[in-house]
Amino acid sequence: MIRRLTIFGVGLIGGSLALALRRAGTCEEVVGCSRSEDHLRQAVELGVIDRYSLDPAEAVAGADMVVLAVPLGAMGGVCAAIRDHLAPDAALTDVGSAKGSVVDAVREGFGELPHGFVPGHPIAGTERSGVAAAFPTLFQGRRVILTPLDTTDIGALAKVRTMWEETGAVVESMSVAHHDEILAATSHLPHLLAFGLVDSLARMGERDEIFRYAAGGFRDFTRIASSDPVMWRDICLSNREAILSVMAHYQEDLTMITEAVSRGDGERLLEIFQRAKAARDRFCE
Amino acid sequence: MIRRLTIFGVGLIGGSLALALRRAGTCEEVVGCSRSEDHLRQAVELGVIDRYSLDPAEAVAGADMVVLAVPLGAMGGVCAAIRDHLAPDAALTDVGSAKGSVVDAVREGFGELPHGFVPGHPIAGTERSGVAAAFPTLFQGRRVILTPLDTTDIGALAKVRTMWEETGAVVESMSVAHHDEILAATSHLPHLLAFGLVDSLARMGERDEIFRYAAGGFRDFTRIASSDPVMWRDICLSNREAILSVMAHYQEDLTMITEAVSRGDGERLLEIFQRAKAARDRFCE
Ligand SMILES: NC(=O)c1ccc[n+]([C@@H]2O[C@H](COP(=O)([O-])OP(=O)(O)OC[C@H]3O[C@@H](n4cnc5c(N)ncnc54)[C@H](OP(=O)(O)O)[C@@H]3O)[C@@H](O)[C@H]2O)c1
Ligand SMILES: NC(=O)c1ccc[n+]([C@@H]2O[C@H](COP(=O)([O-])OP(=O)(O)OC[C@H]3O[C@@H](n4cnc5c(N)ncnc54)[C@H](OP(=O)(O)O)[C@@H]3O)[C@@H](O)[C@H]2O)c1
Repeated sequence: MIRRLTIFGVGLIGGSLALALRRAGTCEEVVGCSRSEDHLRQAVELGVIDRYSLDPAEAVAGADMVVLAVPLGAMGGVCAAIRDHLAPDAALTDVGSAKGSVVDAVREGFGELPHGFVPGHPIAGTERSGVAAAFPTLFQGRRVILTPLDTTDIGALAKVRTMWEETGAVVESMSVAHHDEILAATSHLPHLLAFGLVDSLARMGERDEIFRYAAGGFRDFTRIASSDPVMWRDICLSNREAILSVMAHYQEDLTMITEAVSRGDGERLLEIFQRAKAARDRFCE
Repeated sequence: MIRRLTIFGVGLIGGSLALALRRAGTCEEVVGCSRSEDHLRQAVELGVIDRYSLDPAEAVAGADMVVLAVPLGAMGGVCAAIRDHLAPDAALTDVGSAKGSVVDAVREGFGELPHGFVPGHPIAGTERSGVAAAFPTLFQGRRVILTPLDTTDIGALAKVRTMWEETGAVVESMSVAHHDEILAATSHLPHLLAFGLVDSLARMGERDEIFRYAAGGFRDFTRIASSDPVMWRDICLSNREAILSVMAHYQEDLTMITEAVSRGDGERLLEIFQRAKAARDRFCE
C-alpha cells in the first residue's frame, strides 16, 4: 500500500499510472506537481490526482513513493528541486523512455544516487499526450522494465515492482545499457524513420497530392510520426549512442536493399522480404 | 452492366472486385482463371466466381470485361495467352500496383496496345492474400487510379470507371509516370523501410529479446512488413526508377537526421519532428 504518491508530470503516463492505482485501490493519496496550474487543476477535475502543488518541495513532503513522469529533459531540474525534501526512506522511480540519461540526471540533481531510486520504463503509450489522454488500463498486460542500480535498495525495488504489478503490467528487469540498446532498436529508430519519411514527403513538390493517395498501410506506418516532437527530441538527445549505433546498422541494410533494387536482383529482395515477414509474423501476432 | 467478367488471378484484389460487383448486382457472370484448380474451386465455393477455366483462351471467350489481377510478374504471360481470343470490343484492365511495367507487359503480350486496355490501380489492400482474404467492401470509399493511354478507347474507359464506381470506390485519373512516382513515395518506399527494419532487427544477435519489447508503435509501423514477399519483389522490379529516386531523397534526409542526433542538435530535430507531425496530422486523420 502506498500512503502518499507524488507524481511529477501528470500527463499521459503519470496520469494513467495515477488512474490505474486509484482504480486498484492501492494508494491512499495522490499529489501532482508540474509547471502549469491549469493542467494540475484539470487533473484534479478528471479525478486523476487528489491535490497538487506547484512547489516541488511541498509536493514531495511526506511522500513514500515519488514518480518522475516529466519529459526526459526535465528530470534533472525536478531532482535538484526535491533533493533536500525527499523522505530518506521514500521510493523514487521514473518512467523515462531512455534510462542512462535519467540515471545521470538523478545523480547530478541529488549529488549522489539516492538508495530509494529505481529507474523504470513502462513499454506503453499512445501518440497523444497530456492528462486528458490518460486512461487507467494503459499498462494492462504491457511490460514495465526496471533497471535497478548497484545503489538500489531492495525494499524500494520491491515497492516499485508491486506498484506496477497493481496496474496490470508485467514487470521485468535488465541493465540500463541493455534497456537503452533494445529500445533504440524497437522504438527510437522506428520513430526516427517515420518522422523522417513524413518530413521527406512533406517537403516534396506535390505534397497535397502525395498524401492524398496514401492508403491504410501508410497511415499505420506513419502513425508514430504523430507523436510529441518535444518528447522525441529529448529521447534522441538522451539515447544518442545507442540510436546512432542501430541507425548505422539500419542504413547499411537499407543501402543493400537499394542496391538490390538497382540491379534488379529479385532473388535477393525476395530473400529479405521473406525473412522479414517470417520474423514479424512470428513475433508480432 | 457487365455480361461476362473474366478475372485472371482470383486472390485478394480480384476476389474482392468480384464480390463487390456481385453484391452490387451489376455483373451477370464471373469467370475466374489462374494456375491452381484448388484455388479456383475454393473461389466457386466461397461464391466469388460462377465458374472457372484453367485455360486462359477459354476463360476469356465471350467476356466483355477482362481484369488482370495476377502478380505484376505474371501480367505478360496472361496477355500472350489471351492475345488471339480477347473479343475486339472487350474492355481490358488490370489492378497492378505499378503501371509503367504493366503497360509494357500488355504491349509485349499483345504485340500492340489493345484499344480496350485501361490501366488501373485500386489504392486498397491488406497484408493478407489469396481468395479467402477477399471481401466485398475492400474498395468502399477508397481511391482507384486509372491511367488511360493515348490508345485507350473512351467507351472502354467509361466502362472500367463505372465498374469501379459500383464497388464504392472513388475513381481518378492521372498519367502512368505520375502514378508510379506517387506510389513509390507513399507505398513502395514505406514497404521497403518496414521490410528493411524488421530484417535488420531479425539479424541482430538478440532478436527474440528485441521483438519481445516491441510496443504498439512497432506493431503498427511494421505491419506492412507482413505483406506478401513475392508481390513486393515484383513491385520493386517493376517500379525501379521511381523507387530509387524517392529512396535516394529519403536516405539523404535520414543522414541529415542522423547527423543532427550525432551532434546533439535538439533544435534541428524538433523542427523536423514538428513539421512531420503537422503534415501527418493534417493529411492522415
Ligand atoms: N508517451 C509515451 O508513449 C511514453 C511511453 C513511455 C514513457 N514515456 C515517458 O514518460 C514521460 C512523460 O511522457 P508523457 O507522454 O506522459 O508526456 P505528457 O503527456 O506531455 O506529460 C508530461 C508532463 O510533464 C509536465 N512537465 C513538462 N515539463 C515539465 C517541467 N519542466 N517540470 C515539471 N513538469 C513538467 C507536463 O505538465 P505541465 O505542462 O503542467 O508542466 C505534463 O503533465 C517522458 O519522460 C517520456 O519519455 C512516454
Ligand atoms: N494486395 C494489395 O494490397 C494490392 C493492392 C493493390 C493492387 N494489388 C495488385 O493486385 C495484384 C494481385 O494481388 P493480390 O494481393 O490480389 O494477390 P493474391 O491474393 O496473391 O492473388 C493473386 C492471384 O493471382 C493468381 N496467380 C498468381 N500467379 C499467376 C500466374 N502466373 N498466372 C495466373 N494466375 C496467377 C493466384 O492464383 P493461383 O495461385 O491459382 O495461380 C492468385 O489468385 C497484383 O498485381 C498487385 O500488384 C495488390
